[in-house]
Amino acid sequence: MKKLRLGVAVCLASVVSVSGIAGSVLPAPNGIELPAGYKDWRVIGVSHRTDNHTLRVILGNDTAIEAAREGRTRPWPDGTILAKIVLKDAQHEAWPAATVPGKFVHAEFMIKDSKKWADHGGWGFARWLGQEQKPYGKDASFANECFNCHKPVKDNDYVFTHPIPFP
Amino acid sequence: MKKLRLGVAVCLASVVSVSGIAGSVLPAPNGIELPAGYKDWRVIGVSHRTDNHTLRVILGNDTAIEAAREGRTRPWPDGTILAKIVLKDAQHEAWPAATVPGKFVHAEFMIKDSKKWADHGGWGFARWLGQEQKPYGKDASFANECFNCHKPVKDNDYVFTHPIPFP
Repeated sequence: MKKLRLGVAVCLASVVSVSGIAGSVLPAPNGIELPAGYKDWRVIGVSHRTDNHTLRVILGNDTAIEAAREGRTRPWPDGTILAKIVLKDAQHEAWPAATVPGKFVHAEFMIKDSKKWADHGGWGFARWLGQEQKPYGKDASFANECFNCHKPVKDNDYVFTHPIPFP
Repeated sequence: MKKLRLGVAVCLASVVSVSGIAGSVLPAPNGIELPAGYKDWRVIGVSHRTDNHTLRVILGNDTAIEAAREGRTRPWPDGTILAKIVLKDAQHEAWPAATVPGKFVHAEFMIKDSKKWADHGGWGFARWLGQEQKPYGKDASFANECFNCHKPVKDNDYVFTHPIPFP
């Protein structure tokens, strides 16, 4: 009976887990799934774009963090995933000269697979919009837009982010 | 013999660990030690101060992350540690409207222990400067400066940071 209960519990946990990922967030039009648990990844960089008024925090999966700390970023190794969290500018209520996060704009990702995404410098691009995490793009061609925007940093393996120089 | 080998290994590991912390980075003048492994903590917030031209990433230990995600931040629970990574503004070489990290200015910390630091709203403050990680402050009174600066956000448990509204 104990074994049966355990089996049911494990089974239920699996169902909940699967529905929690596939059921609620759709994949990007190029087939990329939202990387699970990206909120728990470690920090690689930060930036503030004054042209579109957004703050950005760049996180990385374990492969990315190891590469960043060892300086292996030209190119980044296959398996790297970079996550950019984009937040609309707001003013701090008690410190007017501080720009702080307002609305969550989107989370966007670069996934390195030099064979699979050879046409885009080895990077698979994907973005999910807002609190609803709606996939960006009407069809798979949306990634051309991403890639074109990253071309000015071709010499940096198409990545804008320079890792934070931690001591 | 196996037990002896294990004992020696544990002992050696302890020596390496202690020298790795105490040997290279001095404690703050109020006795707070640099929290080990803070670079591996998860992200809580981000900000850009246009008055002193610095970008900031705010990380938290596990207690802080759990509290932030559950909205238990007024007050933050004992055991919380918030780390603020402060980086001098620089301009991105390929995207002039983007402010990105230049020099590493300092890492500063707020450690919640409502009894130990009752005189400072329950927070122990500490800061280590630059790549050298030199402790800030001539004596323990440096923390009054930190606390005074945080008084405008007394109603937010003396914390400026509002956690990123992740989906």
